[in-house]
Amino acid sequence: MTMKLFDSLLSPYAGRVRLAIYAKGLEVEFIMPQTEAAATLPSYTPISKLPTMLHDGHVLPESEVINEYLEDIGTEPSLRPSDPILCARMRLLTRIGDLYIMYPMGELFGQISPVDRDQMKVDEQMVELAKGMSWLDHYLDGTSYAIDNRLTLADCALVPALFFYEQIGPMFGMVAPLKKYPKIEAYFKGIKENPHAARVLKEIDAALQKMMAGG
Amino acid sequence: MTMKLFDSLLSPYAGRVRLAIYAKGLEVEFIMPQTEAAATLPSYTPISKLPTMLHDGHVLPESEVINEYLEDIGTEPSLRPSDPILCARMRLLTRIGDLYIMYPMGELFGQISPVDRDQMKVDEQMVELAKGMSWLDHYLDGTSYAIDNRLTLADCALVPALFFYEQIGPMFGMVAPLKKYPKIEAYFKGIKENPHAARVLKEIDAALQKMMAGG
Repeated sequence: MTMKLFDSLLSPYAGRVRLAIYAKGLEVEFIMPQTEAAATLPSYTPISKLPTMLHDGHVLPESEVINEYLEDIGTEPSLRPSDPILCARMRLLTRIGDLYIMYPMGELFGQISPVDRDQMKVDEQMVELAKGMSWLDHYLDGTSYAIDNRLTLADCALVPALFFYEQIGPMFGMVAPLKKYPKIEAYFKGIKENPHAARVLKEIDAALQKMMAGG
Repeated sequence: MTMKLFDSLLSPYAGRVRLAIYAKGLEVEFIMPQTEAAATLPSYTPISKLPTMLHDGHVLPESEVINEYLEDIGTEPSLRPSDPILCARMRLLTRIGDLYIMYPMGELFGQISPVDRDQMKVDEQMVELAKGMSWLDHYLDGTSYAIDNRLTLADCALVPALFFYEQIGPMFGMVAPLKKYPKIEAYFKGIKENPHAARVLKEIDAALQKMMAGG
């Protein structure tokens, strides 16, 4: 049974799942926002967020749940190391991305407009974000992959997160926002050479350009 | 090599890990806050949050990373189903607990004092929390365990979260805060019969009483 993914080219969470799908070469029917099919999402799950996967009669919300599921059903190549310590490191990096980088960035996205900006909230979230980035920098080794010298679920989570970090930084006065984090900078430069990561980055970038142009 | 856990009886995240540890009967050295040993935590990880585990020369921050690691190294009984769909359901429930219940509750904890309460923030977070609870209610089946009729990592995450939900509700004017969620209510009543869940709940409750008494 073909997998279906309620997708969005603008969502870093959907990008995380597409990166895994591309790396595995899976056949998936992508359901894009504002289509007739997309409108059926709430009938599958009350969470009703993108991405959500349908597979084999099952409904799978939440990007990380989907990516771990793709591992659990044995799709190849595996993007999850079998060594428990490497696997824990992978999940730690993924969680740093979700809780300590994506979360404050989500709050900052709500403050992009300088007109009704809540500067206290911005300052708070910038401190949180800097903390998350310093933790990520600590746990990366400066090579082109988050762990194990190959693509894993940690890269799937981090690549879209760092794309948005580079976008949002300058909106809040940061110049060259990755400069302060040499290992993250080297990692993000290196991972762009991976064709699947490059493909997802290109898709998100194009969708963002289109949105900014009002398209 | 003995496992060590930087622990706190008041932390729902530490409680999540202790629940897994108790269910597995693991020998662990618990390092309690305000001890000399506890002060060494920042030398192990810049994240420096509770809980953090030390095992075999490795440092493991983040409760869910620790719990998945305990599964990956094969400790028994397993608290993670091998069926991919059940496993995805388990991780979905865990994530609902973390992102959509614990997160807004964390924000509400910052607003407990009625004196300098930001009512707009409270209202916002109460809406988020109600959303998270309704999703949890949707995905539980009303039995005594989150999935699979046995203790899993989903229960480890949900038991401390629901304990704090019952505490924080009345502080913001909710009467019998679980009444609106019949499946969660039945679940939380049932899971308390599990001896390991009961033990963790008793520990958190005692620590909270002690803190409230200024001890």
